[in-house]
Amino acid sequence: MNLNTLLFGRRLSNREHEDKKLGWIEAVPAMGLDGLGSSSYGPEAALTILIPLGALGLVYLGPVMGSIIALLVILYLSYRQTLAAYPSSGGAYVVAKENLGEYPSLLAAAALMIDYVLNVAVGVSAGVGALVSALPSLHPYILPLCLAIIAVVTLANLRGTGEAGWLFALPTYLFIACFIGVIAYGVFRIVVESDPAPVVAPPPLAASASSAGIWLLMHAFASGCTAMTGVEAVSNGIGSFREPILKNAYITLTIIVVVLGLLLGGIAIIAVWFDIGAMDQTKEGYQSVLSQLVGALVGFNTFYYVAMSSLLCILCLSANTSFVGFPRICRMVAADGYLPKGFAQPGRRLVFTVGILFLSVLASLLLIVFGGITEKLIPLFAIGAFLTFTVSQTGMVVHWWRQKQRQPRKLAMNAVGAVATGAALLVILLAKFTEGAWITLIAVPVTIGLLRAVKSYYDGLEAQLRKPGPIILDEIDPPTVLVVTESWNRLSERAIRFALTLSPDVVAVHLVRLGGPEMEESEKALRDQWQTEVEEPVAARGLQPPRLMLIPAPYRELHEPLLRLIEKLDADAPERQVAVLIPETVKDRWWQNILHMNRAGRLRTQLLKFGGSRLTVVTVPWRLSREGEPVEGRTIAAPL
Amino acid sequence: MNLNTLLFGRRLSNREHEDKKLGWIEAVPAMGLDGLGSSSYGPEAALTILIPLGALGLVYLGPVMGSIIALLVILYLSYRQTLAAYPSSGGAYVVAKENLGEYPSLLAAAALMIDYVLNVAVGVSAGVGALVSALPSLHPYILPLCLAIIAVVTLANLRGTGEAGWLFALPTYLFIACFIGVIAYGVFRIVVESDPAPVVAPPPLAASASSAGIWLLMHAFASGCTAMTGVEAVSNGIGSFREPILKNAYITLTIIVVVLGLLLGGIAIIAVWFDIGAMDQTKEGYQSVLSQLVGALVGFNTFYYVAMSSLLCILCLSANTSFVGFPRICRMVAADGYLPKGFAQPGRRLVFTVGILFLSVLASLLLIVFGGITEKLIPLFAIGAFLTFTVSQTGMVVHWWRQKQRQPRKLAMNAVGAVATGAALLVILLAKFTEGAWITLIAVPVTIGLLRAVKSYYDGLEAQLRKPGPIILDEIDPPTVLVVTESWNRLSERAIRFALTLSPDVVAVHLVRLGGPEMEESEKALRDQWQTEVEEPVAARGLQPPRLMLIPAPYRELHEPLLRLIEKLDADAPERQVAVLIPETVKDRWWQNILHMNRAGRLRTQLLKFGGSRLTVVTVPWRLSREGEPVEGRTIAAPL
Repeated sequence: MNLNTLLFGRRLSNREHEDKKLGWIEAVPAMGLDGLGSSSYGPEAALTILIPLGALGLVYLGPVMGSIIALLVILYLSYRQTLAAYPSSGGAYVVAKENLGEYPSLLAAAALMIDYVLNVAVGVSAGVGALVSALPSLHPYILPLCLAIIAVVTLANLRGTGEAGWLFALPTYLFIACFIGVIAYGVFRIVVESDPAPVVAPPPLAASASSAGIWLLMHAFASGCTAMTGVEAVSNGIGSFREPILKNAYITLTIIVVVLGLLLGGIAIIAVWFDIGAMDQTKEGYQSVLSQLVGALVGFNTFYYVAMSSLLCILCLSANTSFVGFPRICRMVAADGYLPKGFAQPGRRLVFTVGILFLSVLASLLLIVFGGITEKLIPLFAIGAFLTFTVSQTGMVVHWWRQKQRQPRKLAMNAVGAVATGAALLVILLAKFTEGAWITLIAVPVTIGLLRAVKSYYDGLEAQLRKPGPIILDEIDPPTVLVVTESWNRLSERAIRFALTLSPDVVAVHLVRLGGPEMEESEKALRDQWQTEVEEPVAARGLQPPRLMLIPAPYRELHEPLLRLIEKLDADAPERQVAVLIPETVKDRWWQNILHMNRAGRLRTQLLKFGGSRLTVVTVPWRLSREGEPVEGRTIAAPL
Repeated sequence: MNLNTLLFGRRLSNREHEDKKLGWIEAVPAMGLDGLGSSSYGPEAALTILIPLGALGLVYLGPVMGSIIALLVILYLSYRQTLAAYPSSGGAYVVAKENLGEYPSLLAAAALMIDYVLNVAVGVSAGVGALVSALPSLHPYILPLCLAIIAVVTLANLRGTGEAGWLFALPTYLFIACFIGVIAYGVFRIVVESDPAPVVAPPPLAASASSAGIWLLMHAFASGCTAMTGVEAVSNGIGSFREPILKNAYITLTIIVVVLGLLLGGIAIIAVWFDIGAMDQTKEGYQSVLSQLVGALVGFNTFYYVAMSSLLCILCLSANTSFVGFPRICRMVAADGYLPKGFAQPGRRLVFTVGILFLSVLASLLLIVFGGITEKLIPLFAIGAFLTFTVSQTGMVVHWWRQKQRQPRKLAMNAVGAVATGAALLVILLAKFTEGAWITLIAVPVTIGLLRAVKSYYDGLEAQLRKPGPIILDEIDPPTVLVVTESWNRLSERAIRFALTLSPDVVAVHLVRLGGPEMEESEKALRDQWQTEVEEPVAARGLQPPRLMLIPAPYRELHEPLLRLIEKLDADAPERQVAVLIPETVKDRWWQNILHMNRAGRLRTQLLKFGGSRLTVVTVPWRLSREGEPVEGRTIAAPL
C-alpha cells in the first residue's frame, strides 16, 4: 500500500472534492496544451500544402490563416455562450443530449472520444518526432519514448488533474512567454524598420510553379484547422473548475484562444514578411516553420534553444488535454449508462481512473501498432473536433430557440458558429476524405453502436432488477444447510456450529476420493468419529444432529456431486431453499496461496455460476495465524 | 470446454485409473527414451575426453566402457531387487524414507528432481542441436524449436502417460531396430571377415600425443556415466504399470538395460575395430561417433538417414522420461507434505498436472536463460542420478539388514550396488567439480531446505486445525445479519427474504456516496421506500422488520465502513456472531464482467481478509438472464 501512496498520493475522501478543483492558472496548462501546441503544426500544415506554389504560397497564407482565425473567433464567442448556459457541464455531449436527443449526443460523444484518443497518439508521436530530429541519437528509441511519455502523463493524471496541471505549468507558461515575446519583437521590427533583415535567413523559396486553385486553398484551410482541436476541452472540463466556476472557465478559454490567435496571426505575418515557407520533412536539413521563424528573428542563440525546448515540451505533453477531457466525457456517458459503470467511478484520487487507463492503453496500442509513427492518423484528427463543434453549436441554437425569453443575438451567434464549423467540417471532409477521413466516418458509427449496446444491456438489467411493490414473504422457512466437510477439524467444527445457528436441517457432505483414485481414505473411521464427536453431543443439547453424507467425486471436482445432490433435494422439497456452507482458510501472505489449493474459492465460483438463483453460498472464514494459534478476535487492519 | 476436450481428451473418472496404466510395450518408450538416447552421447562423451590421446585413446576405450557396462549390470541387478521389495513404489525416495529416515529421503528426492529438470533442458537442447547441425537453415530458431518440443511433450503428457507412450513408441522401436541391427551387422563382419574395410572410412585419428593418466581415464569414465541416468525411471514409475505390475516392470527395465548395454558394448567394439574416434564439435565437418559408425558399416545410404532420423527423434523426445518421472516423484513428496498439495492432485486425465506444468515451466525458463544452448549444464547432469542410486542402494542394504529372515545374497548385491554407484559418484564429483558439479552441491541442499519449509508450514497448519474432542456448542444464537443494499430492487428483496430465514436480527446497510462526491442520491426517498416496501409488510407478518442504516463511504469503498460497523456491533454484543449478506449478480458471459464493477466479489474478498474468524460472508446469487426475465429455477449445466 505504501507503493500506492508513493505513486498516486494518499487517498482522497469525498469531502476533499472541492479542494482538488482547478483555478485558471492550473487550468491553462491542463486544458490548453493541445490548443497551444497546435499553433506550431497548424500553420506548418497549411504552409506544407502551399509548397507547390513556391513563393506565391505566402500570398495565399494571409487569407487562409485569416479564415482560420475568424473561425477561431466565432468558436470562442459561441463557446462563451455555451459555458454561460451550461455552467455545470457545457460539453457537446450534454448540450446535444438536452437539445437534440440521444443520437446527436452519442454522435458528439463518439466523435470527441475518438478525437481524444487520436490526439494522444498523434501528439506524443509528433513531440517525440521533433525530439528525435533534434537529437538523432535517440532515433532507435521512438516507440519506448512515446510509451514512456504516455506513462508519465498517465501517472500524473492518476494523481489528479490539479497536480498534473502544476507539473505542466512551467513549460506552458515558458512557451507562451517565449513565442508571444518573439512574435511581438518581430512585429515591432516590421513596424519600426521598413525592411527588416533576418538574423539567419530562411532558405529561399522556389519560384511559383503553378497558381492556386480553390481545391488547394481548401486543402490548406483544412490542414490549418488542426490548430483548433483543443477548444472543446474547456467546456467539456468545466466540472473541474473551482468557484467562481464561470469566471475561471472564461479566463481559461480566453487565455487559450487569445494566445492561440496571437500565435497564428503573428506566425502568418512574420512568415509573409520574412519569406518563411514550409520545408520538405523528408529532406536533409529540414527545419520547422517555427524554427526558421525564431532563427530569422533572433538567430540560433541561447534564447532559440530555450524557446524550442519549451515547444518540444508542450508538444510532448499536449496529450494531457486528452487525459483531462477523455475521462470526463466518458464519465458523463457512463453515468447515462452508455459505457461500463466503472468509467463513472472516482478512484482513490477522485479522478476517473478507468477512463484514464483506458485512454492510456488505447493510445499505447495505436502507437505500438504504428511503431510510434502515427503520421497517417493526422488526417483523421480534426474531423472529430469539428463534428463535435457543429453538433454542440446546433444544440445551442435549439437551446436558445426553446427559451421562453428569446435572445436573438445569442441564437444568431451560435447559429453563425454552427454554420461556420459545419462548413469547415465539410471542407475538411472533402479535402481529406481519401487521406483517411473515411476511417473516422466508419469509426464514429461503430462507436455509437457500441455505446447503444451497452445502454441496452443496462436497460435490460434494470428491467430485470426493478421491484415495483412491497417485499413478498412466501418462503421464510430456514434453509437446508449443506456443510462441505473435508475431515473433522476446527474448520468443520466452526462451520457446523454456525450452520446450527441458521437452521435445524444441517447435512455435512464429505466427498470421497476427491484426491484421486490412489487416495487412502477410511469412510468408516470418519463415520464413527462423526457420530461420537458431532451427532451425540448435538443431540445431547436437544438439537437435531447434522447428518454426514459421503458422496463420490469421480471426477475429483467438488461442485458436480454437490449440484447433483442439490438437484435431488430440490426434487424432494421444491419450496425449500438450500445454502451451501464452505469453510475457507484466509491467507495473509501471497505465498500461502501456492500451498493451498483454493478448493473453497473455486467451489464458490462454480456453485454461484451453475447453482441457479435459489442457492446461497455461505463462506465461513478461518484465519490462519503464523504462530500456530487461530486468531479468534477480529482484526481490522484495512489498508488505507 | 470443447477446446479442453480437444487438447487433453475427455475427462477420466477415478474408476478409469486402471485402464490408463502401462504395459511394457508402452513403458519402454515412456520410461526408456532418456536411457536409450544416452547411448549416443555416453560413448561420445568418453571418446571426446580421450581425443588428446589420439589413436591410443581407442586402446583405453575398452576398459572405460567395460567398467561403465559392469556398473550398469550391477545397477540392473540391484534395481531388480528394489522392484521386487517395493512393488508399489520402488523409487529412491520411498526406499530412503522407509529405511534411512527423512533427510536421506529428501536428499534422494531433491537430487532426482534436479536431475529430471536438467534432463529436459539438456535433452531437448541436445536434440535440437543435432537437428540444427543436420539442417543448418534452422539455426536461427534454436530456442523456439526447443520450446515447441517441450510444448508437444507437455501436451502429450497432460493427455496421459499411456497415450504419450504410444506417440513415442514408433521412433523408439525404430531406433532400437536400426542400431541393434547395424551393430549386429558390424560384429558379424568383424567375426566373419578377418579385417573388414569400412564403407566410408572415418577420418584418421591423430598420432598418440601423450599417454593416458589415471585422471584422464577417470574423466572419461565420469563422462561416459551420463549414459546411465535413465535407470531410476522404472523403479520411480512403477505405480504406472498395469497388472502384472512386477512382470511388466521387470520386462521394461530389462529391455532398457539390455538394449543400452548392447549399444554401449557394440559401439565400443566397432569403434575400436574401425578406428572411430570423437571429432571436435567446434570444427567444420564434425560428425558424431554414431554417424561415423553407421557410415563406416553401411555408407551414407537411405538406411543411414532413417537410422539417424530415429536417433534425432529419440534425442528430442528424451525429455519424456522426465515428464513421466518428475510428476510422480513430486506426487509422492507432496503426499508426505513436502511440496504443495496441488502436486498430489490428479487432473482431468488422472495425471499430475501441476508437476507436469511445473517441470515444463522450469525447463523452459532454463532454456530461455541459456538461449537454448545448455552445454554448460551437462556436467551437472549425472550427479543427481548417481546420488539417487547411492541413496537408494544404501536404503536397500538397510532394508535387507532389518528383515527377520536374513537374505545375505540380496544384501550383498545391493551393498555392491551402493559401493559401486557411490564410488562412481565420487569419481564424477572429483572429475567434474570445477566444471559445474559444485552447482548441484548447492542446489540440492537449497531444494531440501525448501521441501522442509513446506513441510513445517503444513505441520503448523495441521496443528492449528486439529480438533481433538467433540464439538463445542456454546454460541448457537442466530447471528446478526447485515444485508448490503444498493437500492430497493429484486436483488435486495431476495437477500432480505433469505436474511429473514436466518435470523430475526436483520440490518440493511446502504453506503452513501459510494459513487463519489458528485453522485446524486436521495436518502429520504430510500428511507420512505424502505418503510413502505419492507418494514411495514414484514411487521405485518409478525416478524421483526429489518432496519435500514445509511452509513457514509467517504473513500468510495464498501468494506471499510462495514468493518467499522461490525467492530461497533462486536463491542456492544461480543458473543453475537455477524453474517454479512452480499447480493451478487452471476455473469454468464465473460463480457458481462466488463459491464459490472464486481463490487460484491471485492467486498467478499476484503471482508474475508480483514473480518477475522467470527465474521461469515453469505453470497446470495442473482442469475442474469439475457431474455429479460430472471431465472428462478436451478440450472445445472456444469460442463463435462
